[in-house]
Amino acid sequence: MEHLIDMELGELKHKLLTMASHAETAVNEAIRALVERDYDLALHVKENDAVLNRFEIEIDDMVIHLLAKAPLASDLRFVTVAMKISQNLERVGDEASKIAKRARDLSEEPPVKLHLDLPRMATLALHMLKSSLDAFVNRDSAAARAVIPRDKEVDALNKQFNQQIAEHMMENPDTIKRCLNLIVVSKSLERIADHAKNVAEEVVYLCEAQDIRHPNRGKGGTAAITG
Amino acid sequence: MEHLIDMELGELKHKLLTMASHAETAVNEAIRALVERDYDLALHVKENDAVLNRFEIEIDDMVIHLLAKAPLASDLRFVTVAMKISQNLERVGDEASKIAKRARDLSEEPPVKLHLDLPRMATLALHMLKSSLDAFVNRDSAAARAVIPRDKEVDALNKQFNQQIAEHMMENPDTIKRCLNLIVVSKSLERIADHAKNVAEEVVYLCEAQDIRHPNRGKGGTAAITG
Repeated sequence: MEHLIDMELGELKHKLLTMASHAETAVNEAIRALVERDYDLALHVKENDAVLNRFEIEIDDMVIHLLAKAPLASDLRFVTVAMKISQNLERVGDEASKIAKRARDLSEEPPVKLHLDLPRMATLALHMLKSSLDAFVNRDSAAARAVIPRDKEVDALNKQFNQQIAEHMMENPDTIKRCLNLIVVSKSLERIADHAKNVAEEVVYLCEAQDIRHPNRGKGGTAAITG
Repeated sequence: MEHLIDMELGELKHKLLTMASHAETAVNEAIRALVERDYDLALHVKENDAVLNRFEIEIDDMVIHLLAKAPLASDLRFVTVAMKISQNLERVGDEASKIAKRARDLSEEPPVKLHLDLPRMATLALHMLKSSLDAFVNRDSAAARAVIPRDKEVDALNKQFNQQIAEHMMENPDTIKRCLNLIVVSKSLERIADHAKNVAEEVVYLCEAQDIRHPNRGKGGTAAITG
């Protein structure tokens, strides 16, 4: 027979996955609003951000309730990790809102003649997020570890887009204000990949009970940081 | 006689305040590196980020250890809030590193002839952070609440600087790449103020055991969001 606390942990996991699905939809809609220059869809994304905010609060309530029951050490990690994943998902929603705001502004201006494959960047970032959550559900440390290096691909795209945008601005100074919106969008997608990486790192911690977030730990304050 | 758990909670608080002091130093040094065009100081800030990363890990370890002792409900909130504050401080350190990276790049280029009072913006953001942490130490909900609206001042400065930078770029397209670095710096300072606001909101939650992070809670998913 399943214990009550196991049922509650199951509910927490279920709620987190529902929240993740909302976050994914928000990002996809924000990018669609940008590409299709759809003012109303952009507005809808910004309004819908309240749903993710509410999820975060509800998950925090569940977490505090579960922690008060003094769960086993392994459950304790699961519960604190769930809280951190929820924070990351809420911030993915914030980034979707920021993209939507820029999509809305850009939909009212002439299009910038610059090919940036932002949808591909969004797909990469969301795929990282999905893999991280699958790894969480399956408690699959290897799958979570495999997500982490993919962040570099998204960083590289962001850098490449920034160079393209900077060149376009230099050649077409009248597009500078619009181009700055595109820089913000690219930066937001890069941050979504960062959040996916954070989730993956939390899952590794959950599975292995060791902290991989900062590989320089223990090497002293003067350890060299690259990048 | 003080209980062991009270001593441990005191240690957690102490560690958090030491971490906050490191984060503040990092931001101040990053801005000084920018203003004084000091390549070596910028490098030092980036290298020192490892210290804040290590603090976050150590605080998480203390948190898990304390949660396993099944503290009282009020201590439970204190401990989870400490974990969230530590996350925010670690991200303040990340922003300081980003500023330092841009300061380093800018120190190798001719200066941009554009007056932006970035040190003032940094002072505002750090003052918010300090007030939030004082409110945490004193469990002063009113003081924490007073921090929250100050985020809007920093947002307004960021918006004003972005406009100045955009105009400067339009008039001097040869400065675009350097100006993009200044946009990143201003954005990082705006995020530091966001983190300070997050800390203030956590302190209000700690004191009042109610969630003020998302004022639209309960108004349904279609509640209007401004801003």
